Amino acid sequence: MQRPYNFSAGPAAIPEDVLQQAASEMLDWRGSGMSVMEMSHRGKEFISICEKAEADFRQLLAVPQNFHILFMQGGGLAENAIVPLNLSQGGAVDFVVTGSWSQKSTKEAAKFCNAAVAATDEAQGFTHIPDPASWKLRGDARYVHICSNETINGVEFQQLPDLASLGCQAPLVIDFSSHVASRSVDWSRVGLAFGGAQKNLGPAGLTLVVVRDDLLGHAMAMCPSAFNYRLVADNQSMYNTPPTWGIYIAGLTFEWILRQQEGAASGVAALEARNTAKAELLYQAIDGSQLYENRVARDCRSRMNVPFFLKDESRNQAFLDGAKARGLLQLKGHKSVGGMRASIYNAMPLAGVQALVDYMQSFEKQG
Amino acid sequence: MQRPYNFSAGPAAIPEDVLQQAASEMLDWRGSGMSVMEMSHRGKEFISICEKAEADFRQLLAVPQNFHILFMQGGGLAENAIVPLNLSQGGAVDFVVTGSWSQKSTKEAAKFCNAAVAATDEAQGFTHIPDPASWKLRGDARYVHICSNETINGVEFQQLPDLASLGCQAPLVIDFSSHVASRSVDWSRVGLAFGGAQKNLGPAGLTLVVVRDDLLGHAMAMCPSAFNYRLVADNQSMYNTPPTWGIYIAGLTFEWILRQQEGAASGVAALEARNTAKAELLYQAIDGSQLYENRVARDCRSRMNVPFFLKDESRNQAFLDGAKARGLLQLKGHKSVGGMRASIYNAMPLAGVQALVDYMQSFEKQG
Repeated sequence: MQRPYNFSAGPAAIPEDVLQQAASEMLDWRGSGMSVMEMSHRGKEFISICEKAEADFRQLLAVPQNFHILFMQGGGLAENAIVPLNLSQGGAVDFVVTGSWSQKSTKEAAKFCNAAVAATDEAQGFTHIPDPASWKLRGDARYVHICSNETINGVEFQQLPDLASLGCQAPLVIDFSSHVASRSVDWSRVGLAFGGAQKNLGPAGLTLVVVRDDLLGHAMAMCPSAFNYRLVADNQSMYNTPPTWGIYIAGLTFEWILRQQEGAASGVAALEARNTAKAELLYQAIDGSQLYENRVARDCRSRMNVPFFLKDESRNQAFLDGAKARGLLQLKGHKSVGGMRASIYNAMPLAGVQALVDYMQSFEKQG
Repeated sequence: MQRPYNFSAGPAAIPEDVLQQAASEMLDWRGSGMSVMEMSHRGKEFISICEKAEADFRQLLAVPQNFHILFMQGGGLAENAIVPLNLSQGGAVDFVVTGSWSQKSTKEAAKFCNAAVAATDEAQGFTHIPDPASWKLRGDARYVHICSNETINGVEFQQLPDLASLGCQAPLVIDFSSHVASRSVDWSRVGLAFGGAQKNLGPAGLTLVVVRDDLLGHAMAMCPSAFNYRLVADNQSMYNTPPTWGIYIAGLTFEWILRQQEGAASGVAALEARNTAKAELLYQAIDGSQLYENRVARDCRSRMNVPFFLKDESRNQAFLDGAKARGLLQLKGHKSVGGMRASIYNAMPLAGVQALVDYMQSFEKQG
């Protein structure tokens, strides 16, 4: 039976291979007699799962050895507090606001530090990324925060800013929740990256933090121990009991990514090629239609989250109902924006995007 | 095939029925075409799962309507910070220290409030619960914290203290991580209860908080929004993306508990009868032997976590190896205490305890 195509923005589709394997190992993980959920996190079975997940993630995104990979909890929303608690020392932090998530991050950080907006595209409805040359970066900023892909607004940095070339010595912090592992990362430009797992990596409840060694050890006194990066790193993500199931599913997903091939490319490079093709197919269909529109500037359209609107909004419900009947699920746009949104993460095959495009065209013709 | 018996202290055994159902629904939850891990937390499918889990938990522990049931993240260790951030207002908080967990809670809370030890059994190696009449409770305490079952030390409150009868008006906070849903709770004596799910309720990464209505809304300014009980309650545990898989498995576990029967008793009462019988069987075997010993006073021995020592510690590894060969897993004691520990949570059947007792007796006879 063909499974439906699930366009949820997160929690989101998981590769079918991963689900099959998780189901088959549910009662007995590889002869251990236990489900992964039943294993002590300090036992050799789970430690092997966790170490392999970390090593595979390091390989697939070419994470340098001077970065720690941490498995944490609380999602991006908790990290909006945890990052300033660990990095700001209560000082200046600059934010570039390109959508709902970076806006939330700014507001939350202001509880803990001197947060300021270095640039914002709010006046244009979050459809552009302000030119880095225009960012008002402070000389005493402890770090500069961006959301490298805005899930709700569909705005993605096609390359990370080079802060050093802007005369800024502060580390760059990126919230890469909704496009992690969909493309390569230039770690030379990054100090810390964080992301909830529930878009591209696995189930909700697991947060991934990749942090450069020199940024550990500066937490404020009011930082809860469970969220102190130094303690988490020193204890191999087991200072408190980690979300073991999430790490296991993420690990299976990393293995799935490493197996992917597109022509000569493999792993993340293969996915990047596939994701580029998927996004082009969908944006071309939108741009070529009379009914649909996407309002984001072409140079910063997200490859992962494609918000679009029906010019005749009275047809929204009919569009969603028809989609569901065809096995095209969870296309409703975020409540703060309205319209539609197709999230086409790593686990969405090209065939799923083609099925959506076919449906959109036939729906438009029905008029 | 008979599954092994898993005595892990947590993450711990999960009822086989729950695992079977989770495996069977992995690719398609009840005709939705999605795994639970793939569902938007804001979609009607997942909302129905979450609402049912909450209602079932309320039913099984008879949680009064003026208490909120929150699904959070971070485990007991994070709650050690989150509770004082929400309840202390930076004022006085009194702790009763009966083992490793209440000791950790005291230390963490001291970052946020004026934490003091009202009573401690450290001098006796955490083998007794200090008589509540002896507790030094301060008149201005914002709350009084106990760990109602100490997982590492095997010390359990057989009844909750009645603070009002001690002349104390502060709410009681209980860390019930390792015995939640194993016995009834007298909510008239409790202001807030919290617990990680990974002992009796489901997988690691889900934290349950049960909090009385009047204790919401007093969070300190430095409390991260994701961990502000008022915001979590007002948003039905969806202020940030909740750990959806954990809530689903906990929900299946709640259904399993509600189905349990022992004689005329059902639900938690049935489990309480079964847990009492299991603990008696194991403690009698220990007390009746020449080789094994448990050092906890009889009136506060845990029904869930039974630490025991071999009087000849040179035989420890042989004991563990022989146990594993018989399908009796994860019996090694916590590294801070040594020896052995049998965690016999709700999911452990009487037959599992009987198998352990049989093995212990045959091992002792081998000499």
